[in-house]
Amino acid sequence: MASMIFSDCSSSTTARLLPLRCHKLHRSCSVLSFSLRVFLPLTSSRSFLPSLSSFQAHVSSTFVSAKMATESSAIVIDGKSVAKQIREEIAVEIARMREATGIVPGLAVILVGDRKDSATYVRNKKKACDAVGINSFEVNLPGDTTEQEVLNSITRFNEDPSVHGILVQLPLPKHMNEEKILNAVGIEKDVDGFHPLNIGRLAMRGREPLFVPCTPKGCIELLHRYGIQIKGKKAVVIGRSNIVGMPAALLLQREDATVTIVHSRTNNPEDIIKEADIIISAVGQANMVRGSWIKPGAVIIDVGINPVEDPESPRGYRLVGDVCYEEVVKVASAVTPVPGGVGPMTIAMLLSNTLSSAKRMHNFN
Amino acid sequence: MASMIFSDCSSSTTARLLPLRCHKLHRSCSVLSFSLRVFLPLTSSRSFLPSLSSFQAHVSSTFVSAKMATESSAIVIDGKSVAKQIREEIAVEIARMREATGIVPGLAVILVGDRKDSATYVRNKKKACDAVGINSFEVNLPGDTTEQEVLNSITRFNEDPSVHGILVQLPLPKHMNEEKILNAVGIEKDVDGFHPLNIGRLAMRGREPLFVPCTPKGCIELLHRYGIQIKGKKAVVIGRSNIVGMPAALLLQREDATVTIVHSRTNNPEDIIKEADIIISAVGQANMVRGSWIKPGAVIIDVGINPVEDPESPRGYRLVGDVCYEEVVKVASAVTPVPGGVGPMTIAMLLSNTLSSAKRMHNFN
Repeated sequence: MASMIFSDCSSSTTARLLPLRCHKLHRSCSVLSFSLRVFLPLTSSRSFLPSLSSFQAHVSSTFVSAKMATESSAIVIDGKSVAKQIREEIAVEIARMREATGIVPGLAVILVGDRKDSATYVRNKKKACDAVGINSFEVNLPGDTTEQEVLNSITRFNEDPSVHGILVQLPLPKHMNEEKILNAVGIEKDVDGFHPLNIGRLAMRGREPLFVPCTPKGCIELLHRYGIQIKGKKAVVIGRSNIVGMPAALLLQREDATVTIVHSRTNNPEDIIKEADIIISAVGQANMVRGSWIKPGAVIIDVGINPVEDPESPRGYRLVGDVCYEEVVKVASAVTPVPGGVGPMTIAMLLSNTLSSAKRMHNFN
Repeated sequence: MASMIFSDCSSSTTARLLPLRCHKLHRSCSVLSFSLRVFLPLTSSRSFLPSLSSFQAHVSSTFVSAKMATESSAIVIDGKSVAKQIREEIAVEIARMREATGIVPGLAVILVGDRKDSATYVRNKKKACDAVGINSFEVNLPGDTTEQEVLNSITRFNEDPSVHGILVQLPLPKHMNEEKILNAVGIEKDVDGFHPLNIGRLAMRGREPLFVPCTPKGCIELLHRYGIQIKGKKAVVIGRSNIVGMPAALLLQREDATVTIVHSRTNNPEDIIKEADIIISAVGQANMVRGSWIKPGAVIIDVGINPVEDPESPRGYRLVGDVCYEEVVKVASAVTPVPGGVGPMTIAMLLSNTLSSAKRMHNFN
């Protein structure tokens, strides 16, 4: 976001870790008495669709006041709670499928190298699979393994009828051709939804992707679960990555929003963002989107998970979003927190894609 | 565009043919003394790239004054002349390839049924192929042919090494599954660029489509040839069809424009269009985009080709664009006419894709 200007509440354009100046601001903000209304999402067993069609309908519904009540007004979109609800729905569906057909969905994960963050992600995925009753398969290959060995693992899983989803944990070691490896995953098991054929179908009217990429799917699912209307709304997606920004824009477009993608070459991004009814930010810059950039009443889905220094945390850092939360919470009508917003939805959507895949392969509805 | 309001210079939302009231207006406009400056595009042999990078550079360049000089100021983007230039460049390249390798690019067209417009398009394509030295192959099947017969023709052309591009003329008869038939065209011969794998690659950063759909490619080529800067500009695409609107938006996005797609569910489209530096309209509504919707100095690429009644024409109708030309020509800095704007570029880009395909297959640069 080279053309964006950062000040107090934002990271610099170069550093991933916030400078102390900003960190201090955040600490002071974090003890300010602003209110967070945590809204209880709609329950929609099995369908994953909301039973109400407009956000307005929610405003009068039950909500829980959390922390101290003060000036802010945004509803906090509770991704953790929605994800839990979805995982429970998935567990029920998996039990129903197993009872009816004897088939248990299976997810295979290929991990290459010894990156700690990747190992943590893979462990979390395995745990999530176990919890809902999905069989998980794992291959750990050393960092200096050959591309061919990775391809062999993919081929084995492509051919294994007990595997319904294959996931190659990214990033891969630098000596490997990521595109070639991802393309080797059978399209019908591409639960990540990153295959260009899936992206092409997502972009085209009248076509249906086999899988929708998990994080953007999670963003839209949050909007659905909170009954936030998308059709006819102005939406801005900040960031145009293959993994989040671009497919999120395509999904919003499929739901009849008028979509603009803001990116590093956009001039005066704040002017465009200020017009939006719905904002999905997926840019990876701590606290970049300021309160003054937001139209009052906008809905904000914050995909960023950015570490900022925090000596008070046992790990020395804490996670914040792309959005300057303490500012936007006073302007927006709804916002996802970080952590606890989009994050938990990604794995829930991976489980959902794996279940869908198993159902499709075995013609089970 | 259900939400748009039409008045004098536009068609109704229901009729494709303009009512007499509008027709009369057009006739009177057509004899008004407004000036059309026809700008001579840049020559860029072989590369298809402009040698100047900004539109401003053109403004001081040579232009030809056509018709009577009056109030209007827009440069007329002369698609007919650009397309001619491109066809000449293609002919030179084909001769060079034939001399060096003995190989002649080949384009196969499959026509099903007896629609007159389709037959005309196919005839024009054949003529264009002949003119540049591309071998053309044609299969004409009756309207009641089976899907399998069409698929058999595709298979034969997929396997024929003298065919480098395959084009199925749309629309197909109603009893056929268009998606299934288009998907049967080998991705490496999909010169139309409509295969979801091509669209997916077009959408993804770091991936390259084998072919870019011809009409949107022609739009961008016009911008390039006229040295109109795309990077950092606000672009609005009106219409989101798989054939033009959506891929045009993806192309503008790849060139670092900030892109918004306006469609039938967009509220107050004119407000969004009014912000745009570049407008590509591909909606199929005669004279829908009004002069008052345009930011002064914007560049307009009009893809619409809409028949309006014209008793003075031997055929009883004439063709107009999506854009109310006589109004926008006074506001825009550059605009494509209809006919003679985007239209001639589509076939030129088809020839370009066929040549690229032959070069790629035979590793000729």
